[in-house]
Amino acid sequence: MDFHGIIPYLVSPVGADGRVLEAPLRRLVEALIGQGVHGLSPLGSTGEAAYLSFEQRLEIVRIVVEQAAGRVPVIPGVAAYSTGQAARQAQAFARAGADGLVAILQVMFPLPRAGLLGFYRDLAHATPLPLVIYTNPGLYGADLPLDVVEELSAEPTIAYIKDASGNTGRIQSLINRCGARLKVFSASAHLPAVVFQLGGVGWMAGPACIIPRQCVALYDLCQAGRWAEAYALQARLWPVNELFQKHGMAAFIKAALNAQGYAVGDPIPPQQPLGDMGGEIERVLRACG
Amino acid sequence: MDFHGIIPYLVSPVGADGRVLEAPLRRLVEALIGQGVHGLSPLGSTGEAAYLSFEQRLEIVRIVVEQAAGRVPVIPGVAAYSTGQAARQAQAFARAGADGLVAILQVMFPLPRAGLLGFYRDLAHATPLPLVIYTNPGLYGADLPLDVVEELSAEPTIAYIKDASGNTGRIQSLINRCGARLKVFSASAHLPAVVFQLGGVGWMAGPACIIPRQCVALYDLCQAGRWAEAYALQARLWPVNELFQKHGMAAFIKAALNAQGYAVGDPIPPQQPLGDMGGEIERVLRACG
Amino acid sequence: MDFHGIIPYLVSPVGADGRVLEAPLRRLVEALIGQGVHGLSPLGSTGEAAYLSFEQRLEIVRIVVEQAAGRVPVIPGVAAYSTGQAARQAQAFARAGADGLVAILQVMFPLPRAGLLGFYRDLAHATPLPLVIYTNPGLYGADLPLDVVEELSAEPTIAYIKDASGNTGRIQSLINRCGARLKVFSASAHLPAVVFQLGGVGWMAGPACIIPRQCVALYDLCQAGRWAEAYALQARLWPVNELFQKHGMAAFIKAALNAQGYAVGDPIPPQQPLGDMGGEIERVLRACG
Amino acid sequence: MDFHGIIPYLVSPVGADGRVLEAPLRRLVEALIGQGVHGLSPLGSTGEAAYLSFEQRLEIVRIVVEQAAGRVPVIPGVAAYSTGQAARQAQAFARAGADGLVAILQVMFPLPRAGLLGFYRDLAHATPLPLVIYTNPGLYGADLPLDVVEELSAEPTIAYIKDASGNTGRIQSLINRCGARLKVFSASAHLPAVVFQLGGVGWMAGPACIIPRQCVALYDLCQAGRWAEAYALQARLWPVNELFQKHGMAAFIKAALNAQGYAVGDPIPPQQPLGDMGGEIERVLRACG
Repeated sequence: MDFHGIIPYLVSPVGADGRVLEAPLRRLVEALIGQGVHGLSPLGSTGEAAYLSFEQRLEIVRIVVEQAAGRVPVIPGVAAYSTGQAARQAQAFARAGADGLVAILQVMFPLPRAGLLGFYRDLAHATPLPLVIYTNPGLYGADLPLDVVEELSAEPTIAYIKDASGNTGRIQSLINRCGARLKVFSASAHLPAVVFQLGGVGWMAGPACIIPRQCVALYDLCQAGRWAEAYALQARLWPVNELFQKHGMAAFIKAALNAQGYAVGDPIPPQQPLGDMGGEIERVLRACG
Repeated sequence: MDFHGIIPYLVSPVGADGRVLEAPLRRLVEALIGQGVHGLSPLGSTGEAAYLSFEQRLEIVRIVVEQAAGRVPVIPGVAAYSTGQAARQAQAFARAGADGLVAILQVMFPLPRAGLLGFYRDLAHATPLPLVIYTNPGLYGADLPLDVVEELSAEPTIAYIKDASGNTGRIQSLINRCGARLKVFSASAHLPAVVFQLGGVGWMAGPACIIPRQCVALYDLCQAGRWAEAYALQARLWPVNELFQKHGMAAFIKAALNAQGYAVGDPIPPQQPLGDMGGEIERVLRACG
Repeated sequence: MDFHGIIPYLVSPVGADGRVLEAPLRRLVEALIGQGVHGLSPLGSTGEAAYLSFEQRLEIVRIVVEQAAGRVPVIPGVAAYSTGQAARQAQAFARAGADGLVAILQVMFPLPRAGLLGFYRDLAHATPLPLVIYTNPGLYGADLPLDVVEELSAEPTIAYIKDASGNTGRIQSLINRCGARLKVFSASAHLPAVVFQLGGVGWMAGPACIIPRQCVALYDLCQAGRWAEAYALQARLWPVNELFQKHGMAAFIKAALNAQGYAVGDPIPPQQPLGDMGGEIERVLRACG
Repeated sequence: MDFHGIIPYLVSPVGADGRVLEAPLRRLVEALIGQGVHGLSPLGSTGEAAYLSFEQRLEIVRIVVEQAAGRVPVIPGVAAYSTGQAARQAQAFARAGADGLVAILQVMFPLPRAGLLGFYRDLAHATPLPLVIYTNPGLYGADLPLDVVEELSAEPTIAYIKDASGNTGRIQSLINRCGARLKVFSASAHLPAVVFQLGGVGWMAGPACIIPRQCVALYDLCQAGRWAEAYALQARLWPVNELFQKHGMAAFIKAALNAQGYAVGDPIPPQQPLGDMGGEIERVLRACG
């Protein structure tokens, strides 16, 4: 199976009692597939993975896999400080029917090279699923040096990387080193058309939850090499990303989905819901066309 | 119950298969109590709490409480991004017999003041146990402004703070604001005699696992107001702290305990055990007298 | 006068006695103009401006202006913590014949919005020369919020911005807000073809000192809309940027120019010259074609 | 000559035209000496050294030396990115009658060990004056590893260090390593009584400009070993330091001196004067007794 295209990072709707809100999650999955997205990624940063118990995470994967029903691949995030917890999640998600995994290493104490290599290799061997390495030093503390990524790209199941450093030059460096061995996904911290033009295969990001149709249109323009139109559309969509980065990711996507009628609830406490933004979210969404 | 004095942060001995190593943990608890420590704190940073599952954490609390058998208070760390997971740990640890809790807030997205207050208040109300607020912006991302701490000190069960900022002036600021409402523990990032002299009541830190007798002697000198002797002893012990901060906390304490014959195993992967340090650990421990 | 295209950041050749090395600087200017660059920018980060006295800076501007002799614009950097020192440099450089100025604000204590606006406005009014606002929070401590840049773009002589944040999305945000009022230059922290495709007008960077011909070719491909060729060339040139960022900018460019025969000397002490790199610089330069 | 005790960091009164305001500077020097301070340090961080031209700095040293007239030592700050500029300042200040120098290394590009050693050694050899090494990674970018400081302490004229890291444990580490070869001054980021108790010889800091009498009293209590009284006084004075750190150092000290009638003017633009603080400064000063 080949992962590519627009893969929204799903929010995790959870009630005040800690129960996963199944109905809005199923509605969201259905709507996104209906708008043409190419995959679904629960339990990323936008999915507040680190705020959830193992049981809540597994329940979310189970629901998304069931609702997607094979129409698009489901690629949940595995996020842990320890290799053991990561492998436990990976194996449970694989059994639940996931098609691939986004591998998020959380780092508390500085890790030597052997520790970085060890985490991803052990995780790659824990299941037969393809792995998307995720790097985001700002949120999770793990910064993967280029030569570590290059070495990891030799692993058969480490086939993708999603770089969220926000440093677009790093994507050129990755592509120069790893070539076809490692396919690149853009994160919300990058301009997606740029990553496509550099050779990237897709965009995994929270904003695609709320403007899926426009994101798919952007992807199609890039695939067709219609760059001028793609860049013009991207310029129009970019304010959504600005709000996303300014307003705490999950808090913003949940607020926007609530405004669109999905009833996904508030961000998980102690995070706070966005206050009254005076219609700014609605204005920005309307301007996306 | 009044918490004070030398309270070692326990390591978490875990085997390669993820099982808690019960025997060395019980031996360590026994030895520390035998050397006169005034309490025990499993599941702090030194205890690699963030690397452990809920089940592993609960098992460790159960063992330590049982072995301590009421001789000294057991004050485990509760560490979570979400209020719900923190409350779940707190309630389980209370049922297992903990005497108090160290409250560790992990932060991924910037939290407004209401979120900071909400986390600690909800946790304070989750059990009747006294709470030690722990602040360590470097490791966990949460920086508690002084006025937030001051407001929290009005909660009846928020009775202690362990500041690990490394900024000793902040301890003066806390004491000036909160006075007797909030008792202060030193972390390993501070010189403990200084914190005692400023009015602090104890020292919660990983190094006390490996030099408990000397830490208790330092505490006794401070309590007796024999400052010159206390500062001289502290100067002699300080190289242990330097190694602790330089070598990844848990990795160092586990290596030193292994050198002392406790067989606590390696740090939890992907962390790596310390390599051969050419006898440096033994030399530094010997110099502590 | 319209600034655009490839504008190398010149190194500052200075002898051990502090004298500006006039001959190699003139040779470098001559060679760069001969290879088709569209402007020259002495006294940027690559130019070690912060390491030089006012007198040394002025001497360098005088030499570059004289040697360029009007063939291409000369746009030196003005770098200071205080408005007064910045204005003094600006006025002296204007009298020496500079065609524009790169405005570098150095920040030690956090500056409120009024301070940011004040610095750039006062500098804009100090001479009639067009200003290139330079933002590089990593090196100089000043992070200009987007709305401050937008407000500054209303000043008639604030006509350009060189963003060195490394965050390419920020360039889209700037263009969305300021449109034609503020023309954008790429820094070495960005992929230049991307900035051109987003609407940028040029590339101001240290690496253009050592591969000027290839940079001009890249610019020409972008101007012609031959994006596939441009991106392929950029991929080939990118390793030069990697070395530049890894090896302390000035130290690397001086080493590379020395390898090319320019005798520009070492970086200014206490910076150290690069040690033996085993032919890596030569290999990377050769691979640029 | 032996440096010790309370050494205020002087502000730099400068008019809107860039002229040094001689009269208020002389009055301040006179008042501080009258209140018993043990030395004077112009051109530190509080002195906005980085905001001043070489000529302004020299003029300030000239005035302070002349007004002090040998009653207390004058130890101006030398602050530069380059060894050459630092040496030039050092030699000019020595000729103007300075008794010692505070050596401030500004760092833009990461410096290897040889560069760190080179800067301080070359500066130590530039004049016969004793040097106070100043370390403040937050403000100036230079972090001196302990072993570099230890190696530098072998230089005959490198006799003091002022550590402004805010990490009091680092002072214990310095004293353990360098012993009597390097005398330690506290910065405003430390509790001064603590540094005295650890063996420090003095306190160099901006707040001593505005509460000199109380700072001298604190020093006397520490010298007499009356620690309980010293810590009680320090607790009362600490809110001055809190305001100092919160309100941009120079901006706060200038505001407080203006409130005391010294007419030292505003911080140097683009820094902004403090706005109306509703009498907070006066209240905090009054509470110091």
